[in-house]
Amino acid sequence: MIHSLEESPLYRVANPRTIVFFGVSNNKSSMGTLLMRATQVTGFEGSIYPVHRHDETVQGLKAYKTVADLPEIPDLAVIVLPGGIVAETLQACGEKGIRQAVIISGGFKEVGGDGVGSEKALAKIADEYGIRILGPNCLGVANPYAKICTTPIPIEGDPGFIGLASQSGSFIAQMYNYLARNHIGFSTAFSVGNQLNVDLVDCLEYLAVCPHTKVIALYIESINRGAEFIRVAQAIVPHKPIVAYYVGGSETGRRAAFSHTGSMSGPDDLYDAMFKQCGIIRAQSITEMFDICWLLGSMPRPEGRKVAILSHSGGPAATAADICGRVGLHLPAFTATTLEKLSPFIPDTGNANNPVDLTFTRNFSDFFLKIPQILLEDENIDMLLIYLFVPQDILKMKMASSGMSEEKVNETVDKMSWSIEEIAGELRQRFDKPVVGFTFRGMEELVNKTFIKKGIPVFPNPERAARSLQALVQYFEIRDTFN
Amino acid sequence: MIHSLEESPLYRVANPRTIVFFGVSNNKSSMGTLLMRATQVTGFEGSIYPVHRHDETVQGLKAYKTVADLPEIPDLAVIVLPGGIVAETLQACGEKGIRQAVIISGGFKEVGGDGVGSEKALAKIADEYGIRILGPNCLGVANPYAKICTTPIPIEGDPGFIGLASQSGSFIAQMYNYLARNHIGFSTAFSVGNQLNVDLVDCLEYLAVCPHTKVIALYIESINRGAEFIRVAQAIVPHKPIVAYYVGGSETGRRAAFSHTGSMSGPDDLYDAMFKQCGIIRAQSITEMFDICWLLGSMPRPEGRKVAILSHSGGPAATAADICGRVGLHLPAFTATTLEKLSPFIPDTGNANNPVDLTFTRNFSDFFLKIPQILLEDENIDMLLIYLFVPQDILKMKMASSGMSEEKVNETVDKMSWSIEEIAGELRQRFDKPVVGFTFRGMEELVNKTFIKKGIPVFPNPERAARSLQALVQYFEIRDTFN
Repeated sequence: MIHSLEESPLYRVANPRTIVFFGVSNNKSSMGTLLMRATQVTGFEGSIYPVHRHDETVQGLKAYKTVADLPEIPDLAVIVLPGGIVAETLQACGEKGIRQAVIISGGFKEVGGDGVGSEKALAKIADEYGIRILGPNCLGVANPYAKICTTPIPIEGDPGFIGLASQSGSFIAQMYNYLARNHIGFSTAFSVGNQLNVDLVDCLEYLAVCPHTKVIALYIESINRGAEFIRVAQAIVPHKPIVAYYVGGSETGRRAAFSHTGSMSGPDDLYDAMFKQCGIIRAQSITEMFDICWLLGSMPRPEGRKVAILSHSGGPAATAADICGRVGLHLPAFTATTLEKLSPFIPDTGNANNPVDLTFTRNFSDFFLKIPQILLEDENIDMLLIYLFVPQDILKMKMASSGMSEEKVNETVDKMSWSIEEIAGELRQRFDKPVVGFTFRGMEELVNKTFIKKGIPVFPNPERAARSLQALVQYFEIRDTFN
Repeated sequence: MIHSLEESPLYRVANPRTIVFFGVSNNKSSMGTLLMRATQVTGFEGSIYPVHRHDETVQGLKAYKTVADLPEIPDLAVIVLPGGIVAETLQACGEKGIRQAVIISGGFKEVGGDGVGSEKALAKIADEYGIRILGPNCLGVANPYAKICTTPIPIEGDPGFIGLASQSGSFIAQMYNYLARNHIGFSTAFSVGNQLNVDLVDCLEYLAVCPHTKVIALYIESINRGAEFIRVAQAIVPHKPIVAYYVGGSETGRRAAFSHTGSMSGPDDLYDAMFKQCGIIRAQSITEMFDICWLLGSMPRPEGRKVAILSHSGGPAATAADICGRVGLHLPAFTATTLEKLSPFIPDTGNANNPVDLTFTRNFSDFFLKIPQILLEDENIDMLLIYLFVPQDILKMKMASSGMSEEKVNETVDKMSWSIEEIAGELRQRFDKPVVGFTFRGMEELVNKTFIKKGIPVFPNPERAARSLQALVQYFEIRDTFN
């Protein structure tokens, strides 16, 4: 295990001071150009050197005919060339003294046949010059803190706390938007492709010491260095959670993974056992992987698995109770003190037992702050799940139909927005127990958006909320057995 | 089994010509007033009679001091009064000759204690006068075709094809928006509450003969008339699919259901066996229930369980392949003819085998129409799953950064929108095999929105798509064994 970022072979891949790009041109829509553009748009502050055989400038930057002509030795080479000329380019990089490369180009091991030999040729050159290679057949790296992004899609949203190592480039680049929509984001994300001489284990070691990374996510099609993977993961888990989604365990997944990155994957139960040995939380989908990361990176430690559910509707309360039970969470009875404190807030038609069902909401501050406060103070309760249903359009319609002027309606809604923001902020700050919401309405709606912005995760159904809470509990249970 | 809507005790509940409302007032935000408002907003064309002890008019309608004063016998009474005066009101309705009632009021069996006796009192009156009651402790009915809606939230979106019978009113009223966002909707939805003398079986019978209902959904906390339920469901399933979500099978679900509607639910395996005997598809969540209904109501019959996956990204393709395999769908190899036809469309870095992975999209019409056409023509393929990723904001940015004027960018995007609409429409019309999309981007984005609008379901991850396709296959397999 390394103890600082600087010891990692990925240090100057994820934090380069200077980069040379191969395969860029003045054709704005070529793949290479898109990658270089993404790094520029992300705000990279170091020097960028485009290499181009003919043009004097590329995308407004001075271009060089060969890598040998560069005025310095760049920290990183990004290669986006046809497969046939990658080897000679890598050789030239080696001769120049470059020791880190991202090879985006495909057509190697993953296509079989001649591709396997071509990849071996790259490995030989890498060995000869001591070059560490992310790829080939990858999308490289995205590090919003170092303002580098070698994927064709630029980073979206704010930097975040999820460190990702992925055998799919899409699950980096095509997730920026997904994570941004939930106000979470990557700390650093690596697309490892064919893992020539930098693999998931190297990424794990890097992310373990990365100060911006609170939780590590892995998209896995196969693991090459099994023993090292286990050793490194076991060393990380007591300090930082690891969540993995493994795609090669089904027959259809195995075949797809093979044609994707040439990976030889293993059966499901083998990986289950390995993940268990490592203390890694296994997610059943990409969605679930990021759900769990969201909670692990933003929620405090729950003392145990006892959840309180708060709703103003019986059906959503019952479904949440059902799924919480199914995933192994408990719904204990409240203490007599809690029931007494709740009593003034529960109408005759409602139910003060767990799940709490008000049957309707009298006011926001009771539902979103006072009742949660009572529930979270209960010594039997470790975490809270709230059903969110505040349809702004319907509230507006009701106000308008009660004879309110448009101006007054807008003023009232503004006031409501402000009050929800205040309530959500207070709810988040006041308690050291996890609080999570679920809703069936759009995430763009005021209450959902505000809760998420204020740091309370909201899921579009109770199942995702419950499974993520269960994983949060599971992580701390694992950690206790490791310590 | 009934053979026409008119035979159902719910006929004049779901299609009343005249309605009397109890518990309405000139206070716009009272529950009763909201319900009456919802029926008005929904466009009810018959007579509405508010009953009010003092006021001459209620919400602009002539009010009557008692039900006895009404100028005719209404088809339906909607009662939203405090629990204590429901019985005497029902009695007065009976005396007037009213034979259908929706009782919204709670405080009966579901609260236990005196509530049980109060409900028995209602049952006695109902027996005496032959009144059929939806409820108590329910939200009544929503029928967008008959323009009636007794829930506090008015119907949103267009009328649809899902017939719902639900032991939760929220799963009617709080789903309008959810279904509208996906361009699906209810045909008729019943909230049965405590099921005094109209239960899920009556709803099943009604929905079986309802011409607008293509698929029946059930939210179940418990079933009272087990034998009748099985007999009726078995008669329906060969003609119309039934999808059920049962919440009482876990210990936490059982307790929540009991405090919600006073239901005595049974263990999971009992319900599993019963659903199997009925030919009912069991959904594991509300989300999954509506997902499955979406496909069952809008997709043609798949010949078998062989799926083709089309993607331009390896990771999403592999995850889709993995989950398809896990839920029991097959990913067969394509025929030699298909591979030959595909060949001009697949770049060197891509993969023509199932899952098809282009690695990038050259143009929309290839990806969304020509390649799907080839795949769907393959005799080995029963259905198609496509990964959708067309980020409009990024396309716009690329165009702008390539020096295009704002006007030209907007023009190009308009043209693109139009072309996607045409492509999606053609894709939907040309084939008689199911086609479904998945994406990780927002449903409000152009391609996703357009596909859904044109009748191709799009899910926010491959898991929901695969599980719904599997249920679609399962339904027709069940149907074959029933016939």
